[in-house]
Amino acid sequence: MKKKVIVSLSGGLDSAVVLAQALCENYEVEAVGFCYGSKHNKFENKAAQSLANYMNVPFRLIDMRETFKNFQSSLMADSNVKIPEGHYEAESMKSTVVPSRNIIFLSILSGLAWSVGAEEVWIGIHAGDHFIYPDCRPKFFEVMRRAIEIGTDERITLVAPFLHVAKRYIVQRGIELGVPFELTRTCYKNQETACGKCGSCIERLRAFELNNAEDPICYTSD
Amino acid sequence: MKKKVIVSLSGGLDSAVVLAQALCENYEVEAVGFCYGSKHNKFENKAAQSLANYMNVPFRLIDMRETFKNFQSSLMADSNVKIPEGHYEAESMKSTVVPSRNIIFLSILSGLAWSVGAEEVWIGIHAGDHFIYPDCRPKFFEVMRRAIEIGTDERITLVAPFLHVAKRYIVQRGIELGVPFELTRTCYKNQETACGKCGSCIERLRAFELNNAEDPICYTSD
Repeated sequence: MKKKVIVSLSGGLDSAVVLAQALCENYEVEAVGFCYGSKHNKFENKAAQSLANYMNVPFRLIDMRETFKNFQSSLMADSNVKIPEGHYEAESMKSTVVPSRNIIFLSILSGLAWSVGAEEVWIGIHAGDHFIYPDCRPKFFEVMRRAIEIGTDERITLVAPFLHVAKRYIVQRGIELGVPFELTRTCYKNQETACGKCGSCIERLRAFELNNAEDPICYTSD
Repeated sequence: MKKKVIVSLSGGLDSAVVLAQALCENYEVEAVGFCYGSKHNKFENKAAQSLANYMNVPFRLIDMRETFKNFQSSLMADSNVKIPEGHYEAESMKSTVVPSRNIIFLSILSGLAWSVGAEEVWIGIHAGDHFIYPDCRPKFFEVMRRAIEIGTDERITLVAPFLHVAKRYIVQRGIELGVPFELTRTCYKNQETACGKCGSCIERLRAFELNNAEDPICYTSD
């Protein structure tokens, strides 16, 4: 019997490659996304569903808008703070931190994994996240993995295959694995077509450029 | 300005004493409960609201039924497994584990604390929980506290004042602090009046007995 793993599938580029990687390693995979009320969430969730359909894995979307309702971040739909433009590793991008978001997602996925008989939770955090997001850094991840192992009586462990990997190499791996990048959603803004100007878009475009590859999604021209 | 703390208020006896302890230490307190779909949850939530009213602290109830919908435990309302009766530390009581419940609650409370300007999250886990619940044990708690500190850039820490304390001493402390035990809810079963037979009731009754005190709540006579 195949080992079962849960993949945290945001609909972004990184988690799409993580999903492809888990399938390539021949695991039984269930993908899970979260609807938590960010500005770009409805586009992300749609992308995650499309990716799961394409890769033929079951997808579960957990509605957590009630839980995140009072969380402060420029990323949240009810925030008046604008999504910052510019480089992903700029000080200004720190307004996009959603307090404890990954801590929360990993916790829930560990409980769900336990309930559905999965042994691992895979997540797409990577080297580019380290500067801004404290709950994406290796030091956090290692301690959190241990907390979850102990808190689940060693049933569940966390896997972050790209923890130390820069986004350009994630794109490279995605190209090797045939990931349908046209289905992914990266932009932080509340608009259908990616802006090409927020930190998240800029980091994505740069990663394709460094691979001499073309990003297949559309960007607004203004 | 007073330091602000979040207290995880289930409506049970332990968290009621934790709340009283935080108020006695002169913190600004916000209490938070979770509606997550267990059999006794609606009674717990009502008790938590009554306790918060009595102690004059704001109470926030977070509806997480959607998140816990597929979680496997005899404690969940959609489970056909009966709540076991007998001693709290019996093997049979392990069916009442809700996978990762405390991991999840602590994670959410850390993000909420960050968002509302609190510095600590207080929780009522205690020595009696250690046998059954892996995410209530000291080893878990210490690693989880560190994960949350790192994952919040050292903004939030966890406090479990009764981590190593047996329930009889929690009752004793509650008596000293004037906790209105008549407002608390302990029984695991889906019934208004406590059963007096489930592990949770038995542990509670024993704790009062060891204090030569009377438990002020009613129990069913059958």
